[in-house]
Amino acid sequence: MTEPNYDVVAIGNAIVDVIAQTDHDFIEREQMTAGSMRLIDADFAKGLYDRMGPGREISGGSAANTVAGMAAMGARCAFVGQVAADQLGEVFTHDLRAAGVDFDIPARVGEPPTGRVLILVTPDGQRTMNTFLGASHYLPVAALDDGLIAAGAILYLEGYMWDPEEPRAAMRSAILTARQAGRRVAFTLSAVFVIDRYRTDFQALIDDGLIDILFANEEEIMALTEAADYEAAVAAVQDKVPLLVVTRSEKGAIAIHNGERVSVPAEPVEKVVDTTGAGDLFAAGFLTGQAQGRSVEDCLRMGAIAAAEVISHYGARPEADLKALVASKLG
Amino acid sequence: MTEPNYDVVAIGNAIVDVIAQTDHDFIEREQMTAGSMRLIDADFAKGLYDRMGPGREISGGSAANTVAGMAAMGARCAFVGQVAADQLGEVFTHDLRAAGVDFDIPARVGEPPTGRVLILVTPDGQRTMNTFLGASHYLPVAALDDGLIAAGAILYLEGYMWDPEEPRAAMRSAILTARQAGRRVAFTLSAVFVIDRYRTDFQALIDDGLIDILFANEEEIMALTEAADYEAAVAAVQDKVPLLVVTRSEKGAIAIHNGERVSVPAEPVEKVVDTTGAGDLFAAGFLTGQAQGRSVEDCLRMGAIAAAEVISHYGARPEADLKALVASKLG
Repeated sequence: MTEPNYDVVAIGNAIVDVIAQTDHDFIEREQMTAGSMRLIDADFAKGLYDRMGPGREISGGSAANTVAGMAAMGARCAFVGQVAADQLGEVFTHDLRAAGVDFDIPARVGEPPTGRVLILVTPDGQRTMNTFLGASHYLPVAALDDGLIAAGAILYLEGYMWDPEEPRAAMRSAILTARQAGRRVAFTLSAVFVIDRYRTDFQALIDDGLIDILFANEEEIMALTEAADYEAAVAAVQDKVPLLVVTRSEKGAIAIHNGERVSVPAEPVEKVVDTTGAGDLFAAGFLTGQAQGRSVEDCLRMGAIAAAEVISHYGARPEADLKALVASKLG
Repeated sequence: MTEPNYDVVAIGNAIVDVIAQTDHDFIEREQMTAGSMRLIDADFAKGLYDRMGPGREISGGSAANTVAGMAAMGARCAFVGQVAADQLGEVFTHDLRAAGVDFDIPARVGEPPTGRVLILVTPDGQRTMNTFLGASHYLPVAALDDGLIAAGAILYLEGYMWDPEEPRAAMRSAILTARQAGRRVAFTLSAVFVIDRYRTDFQALIDDGLIDILFANEEEIMALTEAADYEAAVAAVQDKVPLLVVTRSEKGAIAIHNGERVSVPAEPVEKVVDTTGAGDLFAAGFLTGQAQGRSVEDCLRMGAIAAAEVISHYGARPEADLKALVASKLG
């Protein structure tokens, strides 16, 4: 077996975030569920964009945020996702490459345009996401190079990608390729609405032993297991994956590795500006720790440090020097 | 003479800022002059974009930033500028309208694309701007509606627009229309390189009594007059314009109104993150004060408050509630 060239190869939505400040009245008037994510179509996206306030465009996408964060901490990463041949596609491509991530999937010509998430951030820092997947939907199985998948020590997948049909097939195929190459597979459950639609699929992946590292937050692990409480949910999953990581917002995070539980508190944050990307950057820190062969506790702490940085400003890509930040706090 | 419908009608570049963090080494390697602005063509913009770090896209344009800031403080404003019919043009249009500014110039179909400024921000908060004007160059005289110009109590023009030929003609025509309608004309000198090219034009506008409010920073007023020092420069201009406003960064700002000088200190800023838009938002505060019939000292203070807000975060559009901020500090 050859040595992998990448610490992580990730497959995810290729999306630009459009982030606007708002107030709770707007969230209510638009009948959004604060803190949630929903899928919207092109027409709805246009109407909502007209109604929302001035924005800032910052590249996003859950798994893309994770590998951008990992690269900032010195990890070697590649990304697989689909943009359209348009200006937002150029922005996404530039930002990911400039972050140090290899990204070579050709832009798709024609409609739909590059995907975007209209993100409304309330004064408490909570984000509500309205996702128009656009070209991201159309990632073809053919875009997945077996050599690339096999070149990553870990294959990282976002649950969000399970929704559209073509990417779902691409992800199934990538999981098998990674397993055959002896690589680990990491999976993030992404959001409750995705779990509600694909619970059976996700449970099957886990039951079949195809997931080595599972990332979830409290709500997601409960949605997956349909358990009555968080502890019951953890108990239902912990023996089925070698490494289970559950983030708990301001309560910190836990990991259960071969039956042993490790907890860390949340990193203190002066002011929570925008929680977009908190989970993505937690995964970035954790997986970078894994790539560096660190202890599970250190991996958790790196996750907490990276998550704390990203919620202290707008956007889901790091602004501070994460490598220096980790070194200053962890050595 | 009818009452004006707008406090300010502004003509300026319609541009999206692409803001990336960088270090002084990069500025030196790229042979940029730190803190300056230069014009670049499409090819150069592409190459520089490839070399620079991950960015965030935030609508910009000097006069557009000013009217966006004014609208945030409750002023009624309209903007005239040229975007292309592309995604960045949609972003610019959305952000300005969502800020509460009337903007109805149709997007221009075909090449070049919407203009953008590649802005490199060093850790000290200083910005270095590389401007690809794109469609902004092509604002036609025909886009200027005499009725709109006459509908603004103040016509506000940015010196940047003097560079391309079509907008220059449009601005000359707008000045005459505004004067005939009995409106005031405000002008910002924008940048030393513009003054170096069009000194004779700008001096003629001032000597002919066509400028009622002139905005400049220390370097610009010295470049305009070619005076040996700042005081000599101020002395050379102050009797030629009814209202001269000179911003002096951390030294505050002065205004000279009919021979009388008023000074204010700079507003304290916890951390200067990105100085992009400091002058634009100073003008926004000052002109909003003028629209509200406030004293020159209050107008200067409003300028200082708005400028301090905009340099405390990335981007040249306000993030805080400027109206509330002014009310809390000034009443």
